[in-house]
Amino acid sequence: MKGVAVLGSTGSIGTQTLSVLRGLAPEYGVVALAAGQNVALLAQQVAEFKPKLIYAEAAGARQQLTGALSSTGAWATPDEMAAHPDVDLVIVGTSGKAGLAPTLAALRAGKDVALANKEVLVMAGELVMAEARRSGAAVRPVDSEHSAIWQCVWGEEPGALQRIILTASGGAFRDRPLEELRQVTPAEALRHPTWNMGAKITVDCATLMNKGMETIEARWLFDVPLERVDVVLHRESIVHSMVEMRDGSVKAQLGLPDMRLPIRCAITYPERLPFDELPRLDLAAIGTLTFDRVDLERFPCLGLAMAAGRAGGTHPAAMAAADEVAVGHFLAGRIGFMDIAPVVEQAIAAHRAVAAPDLEAVLAIDAWARRYTDELVAQRV
Amino acid sequence: MKGVAVLGSTGSIGTQTLSVLRGLAPEYGVVALAAGQNVALLAQQVAEFKPKLIYAEAAGARQQLTGALSSTGAWATPDEMAAHPDVDLVIVGTSGKAGLAPTLAALRAGKDVALANKEVLVMAGELVMAEARRSGAAVRPVDSEHSAIWQCVWGEEPGALQRIILTASGGAFRDRPLEELRQVTPAEALRHPTWNMGAKITVDCATLMNKGMETIEARWLFDVPLERVDVVLHRESIVHSMVEMRDGSVKAQLGLPDMRLPIRCAITYPERLPFDELPRLDLAAIGTLTFDRVDLERFPCLGLAMAAGRAGGTHPAAMAAADEVAVGHFLAGRIGFMDIAPVVEQAIAAHRAVAAPDLEAVLAIDAWARRYTDELVAQRV
Repeated sequence: MKGVAVLGSTGSIGTQTLSVLRGLAPEYGVVALAAGQNVALLAQQVAEFKPKLIYAEAAGARQQLTGALSSTGAWATPDEMAAHPDVDLVIVGTSGKAGLAPTLAALRAGKDVALANKEVLVMAGELVMAEARRSGAAVRPVDSEHSAIWQCVWGEEPGALQRIILTASGGAFRDRPLEELRQVTPAEALRHPTWNMGAKITVDCATLMNKGMETIEARWLFDVPLERVDVVLHRESIVHSMVEMRDGSVKAQLGLPDMRLPIRCAITYPERLPFDELPRLDLAAIGTLTFDRVDLERFPCLGLAMAAGRAGGTHPAAMAAADEVAVGHFLAGRIGFMDIAPVVEQAIAAHRAVAAPDLEAVLAIDAWARRYTDELVAQRV
Repeated sequence: MKGVAVLGSTGSIGTQTLSVLRGLAPEYGVVALAAGQNVALLAQQVAEFKPKLIYAEAAGARQQLTGALSSTGAWATPDEMAAHPDVDLVIVGTSGKAGLAPTLAALRAGKDVALANKEVLVMAGELVMAEARRSGAAVRPVDSEHSAIWQCVWGEEPGALQRIILTASGGAFRDRPLEELRQVTPAEALRHPTWNMGAKITVDCATLMNKGMETIEARWLFDVPLERVDVVLHRESIVHSMVEMRDGSVKAQLGLPDMRLPIRCAITYPERLPFDELPRLDLAAIGTLTFDRVDLERFPCLGLAMAAGRAGGTHPAAMAAADEVAVGHFLAGRIGFMDIAPVVEQAIAAHRAVAAPDLEAVLAIDAWARRYTDELVAQRV
């Protein structure tokens, strides 16, 4: 049995991961479950999967879970889980910077990581990939886009990948005239055309900041400079992404939007196990796939993210923190949709850049950028 | 240096192969050239590439090539070329059954074969693949469709391939109403919407017999039963074909129509060498890709071919021979476009089927089916 630790087990990726692991038993087993605030759901998951190690961030969680702890498992922090001898693979499904330390702990201990958390590589891609190289552990993508790229380069020689073409649905406002974007409401921003996800990431899809972060992730996962990462608008979200090889051959991975496939790939690689429950793609029924250029004027966050990625160092970390805070203020109605980009831009510009930051420096910039962005918004309001 | 024998060097695939090999020198060298009737072009190719071994089918060719033979090479039959110690890879670019014996000779001698000839696998797929298994030599596809499938399964486990989805442009008559197809002329049939090829194959594209033969080829190349080979209409010829893996993941290979890419892949595998001259695919510029079901009433040859493939044995060989003769009669104006399918069907039905034919039996059926089809057409006219 391969032992899996699921960090963020009560979130969207976590619950889907557990549903995948249900189908993969007994070859794959849940060794550790870590959650944030949803202790009630965690207790149910513990009762079902009986993990050896349990954690929840919520205050008083340890007391609430006493029953489960006494019968099946022990309390352990995500960092401890990540390095535990019974764990072979760590699924990082926590959002935000909470995934960073466990990812580094897992890689340091030589455990493969399945990464569903964008911020880890955006904030500290250089650090994380250096740790993976040192220990020989792998960072496997769980995002649909990066899983697509990954599947397309299986069996290809290192160095043969010339260009990455990330597809973008275009988010909730892909068809809104630019002049209307100042007035859109949080409720409108939360209507994603093809994927059903959390609030923050859905707004990031509408600004294309999410796609910008994905370009940075792709840069680190596949060791390709950002100059060779393109974004193409693809409304149908059927082609999950593409690669261009150095002989000009283009490969794409396609499917109906369903996160269970990238989750399974990340767990069972290099095997592909039968997955009959997955609805099959029928292109003749879909009929038409469209592709278009992205309008950077309408989506300034994409250019911003790619510029931060090219600048490197702490720029992407400052950007990610500022974006999270700015999106929060947008969702609370304190700033407009088109204020997100200039607020983030100002935070990046004002931050004290460090060229090759360690984890501490990254977290310091993160904390600074959050405070700074709060103040910036307070001044604007 | 890897030694390459190019059979059919003066044809469409042959000349494109030589242009590819020009760019791959000195790592790949032309060791042998074999042509059919175009001795003048062969003489030029011999002067440029100075192969060790030379052949042309044309009467008197050996005398015409005396000068070249005395200075650079020796006369050798395609079968001798295929098994020559200096040859590492045999490109079978001859059309029709002429490719069959050299393919078998190459595989028997343990040489990899790059196969651009459809008839070889349609007529004798079982024999050819058995020979490859025995010697451990590979059969690499040169067709754009099969190269696409091949590229998509690099790095995938054997057995993980669940379904092959061949794309079809639909040929010259994809938009003609069914009732007009009886009246179409050979000149109209020769207007292929996306690829520029020889006359016989272009008519086979218009009837979809070509696609039917490709389903049989795919069946042998990738060891997938015909029940798991689908055809989807894709007008733009950008997606060259697709695979569905057993977890439901779909992979596709895309590019502008250019045979040099599959030729290069077949020569340099498992390497992908830089190919800057290949025009790059820009999907945003193309905008739309369409997919549709194939209308089997309009294209009876597709159903005919798949049925012959499922029946196995000598059925596909009888079909291929009857089709070649029937298409010749259509091009000569002796039968109509919609007569091709019933003529071929009648020949298949009338042939004396052999379940596991050897080469001799295959060639006997081929000869019989040609005579029979000629007689059939003579009776009809």
